[in-house]
Amino acid sequence: MLGLVQNSHLGYISQQLLPLGLRVTRQHTIPDGQIIADVLAEALDRADFILITGGLGPTSDDITRQLVATQCQAPLELHPEILQKIQTYFAKRQITPPDSVNLQALIPKGAQVLENKHGTAPGFILLYQNKHIVCLPGPPSELYPMFETQVLPMIKKLNPQSAVLLCRTFRVYGMGESEVQQRLETRLLALGSVEIGYCARSREVDLRLITTDTVLLEACSQLVQATLGDSIYGQDEGSMESVVVKLAADQQRLLATAESCTGGLVAHRLTNIPGSSAVFHSGWVTYSNDAKIRDLNVSPQTLESHGAVSAQTASEMALGALEKSGANLAVALTGIAGPEGGTESKPVGTLFLALAEKHADGKISCKTEEKRLVPSREIFKLMASQAALDLFRRALLGASKL
Amino acid sequence: MLGLVQNSHLGYISQQLLPLGLRVTRQHTIPDGQIIADVLAEALDRADFILITGGLGPTSDDITRQLVATQCQAPLELHPEILQKIQTYFAKRQITPPDSVNLQALIPKGAQVLENKHGTAPGFILLYQNKHIVCLPGPPSELYPMFETQVLPMIKKLNPQSAVLLCRTFRVYGMGESEVQQRLETRLLALGSVEIGYCARSREVDLRLITTDTVLLEACSQLVQATLGDSIYGQDEGSMESVVVKLAADQQRLLATAESCTGGLVAHRLTNIPGSSAVFHSGWVTYSNDAKIRDLNVSPQTLESHGAVSAQTASEMALGALEKSGANLAVALTGIAGPEGGTESKPVGTLFLALAEKHADGKISCKTEEKRLVPSREIFKLMASQAALDLFRRALLGASKL
Repeated sequence: MLGLVQNSHLGYISQQLLPLGLRVTRQHTIPDGQIIADVLAEALDRADFILITGGLGPTSDDITRQLVATQCQAPLELHPEILQKIQTYFAKRQITPPDSVNLQALIPKGAQVLENKHGTAPGFILLYQNKHIVCLPGPPSELYPMFETQVLPMIKKLNPQSAVLLCRTFRVYGMGESEVQQRLETRLLALGSVEIGYCARSREVDLRLITTDTVLLEACSQLVQATLGDSIYGQDEGSMESVVVKLAADQQRLLATAESCTGGLVAHRLTNIPGSSAVFHSGWVTYSNDAKIRDLNVSPQTLESHGAVSAQTASEMALGALEKSGANLAVALTGIAGPEGGTESKPVGTLFLALAEKHADGKISCKTEEKRLVPSREIFKLMASQAALDLFRRALLGASKL
Repeated sequence: MLGLVQNSHLGYISQQLLPLGLRVTRQHTIPDGQIIADVLAEALDRADFILITGGLGPTSDDITRQLVATQCQAPLELHPEILQKIQTYFAKRQITPPDSVNLQALIPKGAQVLENKHGTAPGFILLYQNKHIVCLPGPPSELYPMFETQVLPMIKKLNPQSAVLLCRTFRVYGMGESEVQQRLETRLLALGSVEIGYCARSREVDLRLITTDTVLLEACSQLVQATLGDSIYGQDEGSMESVVVKLAADQQRLLATAESCTGGLVAHRLTNIPGSSAVFHSGWVTYSNDAKIRDLNVSPQTLESHGAVSAQTASEMALGALEKSGANLAVALTGIAGPEGGTESKPVGTLFLALAEKHADGKISCKTEEKRLVPSREIFKLMASQAALDLFRRALLGASKL
């Protein structure tokens, strides 16, 4: 409520519920205080299922447990087995816990305890007036696994016949939202009653189809794929990096990265994917000219005559990374992330990419691209890393079609 | 409500209001539909000032304008000057607007129009039952400037004597929230009426002090600093990476990174900070054993006898990066991010860090640390990168005190 921490709980929970055909109808964000009980009372008048997140910690502002207990006339009871776990948690870390953590072993009478494997505060489910009240801790690292392993299965059991909403998202790179809409919307709606949504990001758009009709969803999906082709890089949760790692793993190819302006972000994104160690062995962050020369064999003459931010430098970086790493594909990025460093001919946002490839016959090729991205450092880095991953993807996709 | 777009309005508005001593007491997130009128009716029972964001666009799901008009018995009226602006907006972009955009020229009777310089949908302020209802468009690029230039000044005028709330956040690393509370809360409250808040993240906590009393805030801040010392890495918005880059720049020192399990995240975070190119020239992502040997001079014997995930390997990686880069400080990370790759003695979550330092007298030292982090790949990488940045920070802080 102070604007210091972004609340991501609603987005997360809605995403989890959508595939079950369930939607959150109302979400409240409220400060710690008596208002928690007020909002719970209002919600009990309206809803059958109430999810409360946060306020289960050991500090003085964590009063949710007590307020829920009072509101539902279910006095708090000490659970010795939880107390034991909390003490073990701290003992393992060789920390003497303050007495206040023991508050977390208190659970409203009659509630079912939800185990927390990633922290000390357990959650609980209380049945009151035939309604389910679920309380979960706020930190996402605790909330998410508890929701997925304990709450979601229970919700599924409670709603066995709910009409399953089918939702499919096509992730499109290199095309604007209005172009996607213009090419598809009328034709999709002609196929039947499908809900179409768009979510635009920098040089990307998610196209979302929602329906309860399996056959219609397939027909729509075919139309989308036939129309947008390679511009679709993933479906639903499929990120660009997961697609690249999967394609490379399928083809047993090895990737390398040579990054200047993105500072390691391309490598970071690749290594976010489990199993990436099979396809990615080495990456370089060569932020200075010296590092480019020393680690990637970029020639000092190239840097002097074309500058560090140039197609030539990008190309030599990619070729250097390819050679040094022994990979089949290497991508290189050099650009101006800003806010400083821009010139008239190369303003902030200028990016050069290069993709070097060692082909099956041993021949080496290299192509470069120039882009002009937005002058915002963090978004520039993100867009640049996405462009580099897309270069990998298209090269791998091309090979898979041969 | 589908979980596809993150709602950042509350955070933004709360941050804007806090310096005025004002807080949002309740926020609702609701879908487009009749519920907008229901929630408005409820809010009119409770609040004097109601802010509604979103739903003012030209598409069929944008019904906020109509529902507010009906609820407040203020029928929509066409404003020709707005219509003119909308048509000019599209003409400039050489687009023929669909008729539906003209809906945006409708404003509830008696409402004050809020001009939108960044889009076509104007906002408005309606006085109803002596309460202010403010409607603003949802896109942040339109909402933020309208809020700051038109709504905030009006709120200030309505609350001329509101006490200015002072808020200070201490960012603490390596300490749990209950430990911070135990060491500080009673002593802080003994100093005066200060509001204390905690926000816990993985192995971190933000301690927040809020008061209207400048003298009290300074006294509390001194107590916090004297008690937590080096564990405080930043204040307010200061991230770990920004602190590290600033300290290194002040001391004209050069940093290098050698990353295995974090896959470039440490370098990415450092290079997110403008000006980082002065203190960071090169980083390595050595994901395979071969890359560690080839690029960082790790000895094959070390890898064989101790394994890639070991203090010895971390240490040789850091020393190799220090030597190759010519930096004064190099950090290395090797660990098991999971989900695969864990063993009994080195489970998923195991991390070894090393910090190699070249001192002013030319001597080189290296220290290592072992940590056991959470078995979640992305959170592991984040926590590991934070631990590495903290090693940099403490080394730089130590040097600055000599």
